[in-house]
Amino acid sequence: MLDKIQIVLSHTTHPGNIGATARAMKVMGLSNLALVNPKKYPSAEATERASRANDILANAKITDDLNEAIADSKLIVGTSARTRSLPSKLITPRELTQIIEKEPHKMPVSILFGTENSGLTNDELHLCHYHVYIPTNPDYSSLNLASAVQLICYELRLAFAEGELLPEQPIVDSEQLISRAQFDGMLQHFLTVMRQSGYLMPDHEKQIDIRLNRLLNKAEITQAEMNILRGFLRSIENKCNQLENIQTENDSPANL
Amino acid sequence: MLDKIQIVLSHTTHPGNIGATARAMKVMGLSNLALVNPKKYPSAEATERASRANDILANAKITDDLNEAIADSKLIVGTSARTRSLPSKLITPRELTQIIEKEPHKMPVSILFGTENSGLTNDELHLCHYHVYIPTNPDYSSLNLASAVQLICYELRLAFAEGELLPEQPIVDSEQLISRAQFDGMLQHFLTVMRQSGYLMPDHEKQIDIRLNRLLNKAEITQAEMNILRGFLRSIENKCNQLENIQTENDSPANL
Repeated sequence: MLDKIQIVLSHTTHPGNIGATARAMKVMGLSNLALVNPKKYPSAEATERASRANDILANAKITDDLNEAIADSKLIVGTSARTRSLPSKLITPRELTQIIEKEPHKMPVSILFGTENSGLTNDELHLCHYHVYIPTNPDYSSLNLASAVQLICYELRLAFAEGELLPEQPIVDSEQLISRAQFDGMLQHFLTVMRQSGYLMPDHEKQIDIRLNRLLNKAEITQAEMNILRGFLRSIENKCNQLENIQTENDSPANL
Repeated sequence: MLDKIQIVLSHTTHPGNIGATARAMKVMGLSNLALVNPKKYPSAEATERASRANDILANAKITDDLNEAIADSKLIVGTSARTRSLPSKLITPRELTQIIEKEPHKMPVSILFGTENSGLTNDELHLCHYHVYIPTNPDYSSLNLASAVQLICYELRLAFAEGELLPEQPIVDSEQLISRAQFDGMLQHFLTVMRQSGYLMPDHEKQIDIRLNRLLNKAEITQAEMNILRGFLRSIENKCNQLENIQTENDSPANL
């Protein structure tokens, strides 16, 4: 799907924005770029800002006629910060992906970006079936050209990239969650040591049990974490036992 | 809500990225920026790239200790291109907004961005409750720092900005859609003129009626557009009538 979507930059002033656009596209898996009458191109600045996305620039369609750039497209979408008296329907980037998703026969799609300062001209606006508006701060809507491309390509990737959005996180054995039986053994161990330490009084036992259960549940304890906690509890038990032994010896008849 | 979300840049190498981050934040309505040990700051390059978002830079919290920057935050979220053996749960930017939406008591939130080349350090990663992963092209995941900030701030704006995402498009009277009665008058006018022009034959009348109805319905005709179409139809009627009159005259007994 992403192969059938073309980004069209019309009359771009700053070559750096062309390079940054190539990078923004490639990082989201888009590759079709058309440049209509770029002011300064080719340019070392464009190449530098493209980082390792120079293949996008090398394969870009360069023309001095927008109609030529979009001749094969079936759906033409404009982008603009202007919202007054646009000749076509205003939609969000997410709504654009929903339209393409529901009606894939509308591809190939061209998405047009106008010149940096003033956006698409009226003639360019009239070529568009829809108009994408990126929601921005009404007090400061100065979205950089390549940033606008980045946001739209991101939405397209979320909607159309194949495979999972998130890479799989491999889980080693020690990171496996504990079972409820293991959880309960640990919880009882806690309560025993709390009793032995003198912290847990019979009056509060029920309340502490409930809160501790909740706290440990929230933590989603793993095997490795359970081993740490139970090891720590055993050390406390040892200390308590040592202390009890000493106190017992001190109380024994031999010391009397 | 956006006021309770802080963007934290840790050990940023290029001052241009700090300026571009300020702009990316402001355009989406975020204002809290913290800079932990920036390599070159303040810097003319940062100021230039910030465009008119210099207030964000002027109010930024600058510290050499990440713990100080996030001391007031309740939820700490890391960002990373790395995905192996992260100590916290991997989520998408959209899932982050859903967590904050469902559990607003987790605010204030800090979102951490590490140094450009290597991202967050292990010590920094361990401070995080969650880890945001921005879905990118697995063959080229080189997302610029300020672009990553831009994408996350965009998702936050979509989720938490007050008011409508799209500005209202004022509709003047001539742009009001026509009613079904007006539509039917126009359709019948079309059919009449098609008949008169000799295009519409009785055999195809039903089929053309259906297709024309569909075509005009899809176009969602406005008052102004209906006036153009009916004006055009009347002109054709006139021409047809003129021709018929001439032909009638030619056929009249006087010409015999």
